Amino acid sequence: MPNRPALLIMQRHLAPLTAFLEADYTVYRFWEGPPAEAQGQIRALVVAGEFPLDKALIETLPALQLIACFTSGYDGIDVDWCRARGLPVSHAPGVNHEDVADHALGLILAARRQIAAGDRALRAGGWTVDAKMITPSLKDQRLGVVGLGAIGEAVARRAGAMRMAVRWWGPREKESPWPRAETLLELARDSDILVVACKADEGNRGLISREVIEALGPQGLLVNVARGQLVDEDALIAALKDGRLGQAALDVFEEEPTEAARWADVPNTVLTPHTGGATTEAVQGMLMLLIQNLRAAFAGEPLKTPVP
Amino acid sequence: MPNRPALLIMQRHLAPLTAFLEADYTVYRFWEGPPAEAQGQIRALVVAGEFPLDKALIETLPALQLIACFTSGYDGIDVDWCRARGLPVSHAPGVNHEDVADHALGLILAARRQIAAGDRALRAGGWTVDAKMITPSLKDQRLGVVGLGAIGEAVARRAGAMRMAVRWWGPREKESPWPRAETLLELARDSDILVVACKADEGNRGLISREVIEALGPQGLLVNVARGQLVDEDALIAALKDGRLGQAALDVFEEEPTEAARWADVPNTVLTPHTGGATTEAVQGMLMLLIQNLRAAFAGEPLKTPVP
Repeated sequence: MPNRPALLIMQRHLAPLTAFLEADYTVYRFWEGPPAEAQGQIRALVVAGEFPLDKALIETLPALQLIACFTSGYDGIDVDWCRARGLPVSHAPGVNHEDVADHALGLILAARRQIAAGDRALRAGGWTVDAKMITPSLKDQRLGVVGLGAIGEAVARRAGAMRMAVRWWGPREKESPWPRAETLLELARDSDILVVACKADEGNRGLISREVIEALGPQGLLVNVARGQLVDEDALIAALKDGRLGQAALDVFEEEPTEAARWADVPNTVLTPHTGGATTEAVQGMLMLLIQNLRAAFAGEPLKTPVP
Repeated sequence: MPNRPALLIMQRHLAPLTAFLEADYTVYRFWEGPPAEAQGQIRALVVAGEFPLDKALIETLPALQLIACFTSGYDGIDVDWCRARGLPVSHAPGVNHEDVADHALGLILAARRQIAAGDRALRAGGWTVDAKMITPSLKDQRLGVVGLGAIGEAVARRAGAMRMAVRWWGPREKESPWPRAETLLELARDSDILVVACKADEGNRGLISREVIEALGPQGLLVNVARGQLVDEDALIAALKDGRLGQAALDVFEEEPTEAARWADVPNTVLTPHTGGATTEAVQGMLMLLIQNLRAAFAGEPLKTPVP
């Protein structure tokens, strides 16, 4: 069926896309083991950008015309390598950054105001007449934003409405209403809450190092809504266990799904399963861009949202 | 010791106040059973305003000069009855409404973006490669605020920063940037999220009735950061159990502490142990007002913050 290009969806959790794509495309799913004869027909890979994309696989697909990244982030894809092979990459920018920022504030509140822990305590019968759980106010907490991109700005705006004082750091100077710290370490030292909101690439793996974590300190809260690889997770866990860091609220992890056992004896954490940008509305917007990029690629037209 | 007036603290969770009061006062604690001879000496009761204050007890204290309410709310106190006896009541207004509003937003995010449920699922090993938890965006959710006092306004401001559309209802018209619904029922019908933020008194017990709960409906989220008695809690639980209401996020309950067993099989809830206004900073502010009101009362001066 030459007028029905073949696609290969790479990650299982993207399986629901099948229903929207199979009217126009022959859809294969990587985890089901696509038939050998499909290999010559696959014209696009549909991927979630946070997962490493296997170059060896790409080399076995001679008809490949597009890496269609369903997400905004594309840190799992070696874009330069693809480009050198004449293989364009599309993604879904500008769709879910406000939702990710909402989630970041939700994590801050769940951690600082003990909403997750309070819910757990109440359900376990821990609310008694003897004591009252007292939590810190957000007022005048110093919020440091790492990376003032679309997500970082949206976090900063919300934090202002909640009476926090915002500063930020990023490798490049940028006009903004909020002061920029000289260094990441200085930002961590002068912050009560540090929100990681920057793009991940090979150059900033482990950016939130043991040193940065310790600069944030025993009262500090680390929030990550960007990518797990930006944080030295072993150092983070060690610091939480011995009190060198106060709290962590994480939506992203070095390995996803992260194992429950890894966090079982790590205190003062709020953990969500990478749901920050995964809202019904954002997923619809990402699906629309995916379909537009696929159509454009197969019609020989410019991609709607190519990776820059 | 005539220069050390005697106080009686009524609720156990207020016990930590003792340390701040006993330098200047003889402090008795109700739950320890104060000695009979103290009865003639007690000159002020220190109370948490959400608990019913026993009139019979008051009648046994001939030296009583002040009901010093530690909290902002004083719904447990029959102020008219006290006034008729020449007994003034002080409270702590304007100290924690912004913190309560933060907590309300935290509850909205914890419920809508499944932060509490996601944390539970991840820790229980429920995050797998097969599926992704998708949650609704807050964008354009219609937020109805019940009672546009200090807390309600602070909630409305924050909701705007999170892209929600705000309306409100209260018994009296009031200038504000947000439109007022004609009736509470209309507000509930036209809202995705209803936040109860009004003052409680005998006139509005059960204000959030079965009818209001059903008007909010199967997709609706009810948030209560005001007082438990404002909501018909049995009707709420029944509606959650059979899906006539979507979700509830509650910081306050008909009885406090509420029993864990009461909520064990009630789905789609986030529950916190009345921590909304109990921040370190707010508690310090309330303590300062308490001390000022006690001093004023015993010096025969006007109270700093009398109940209006």
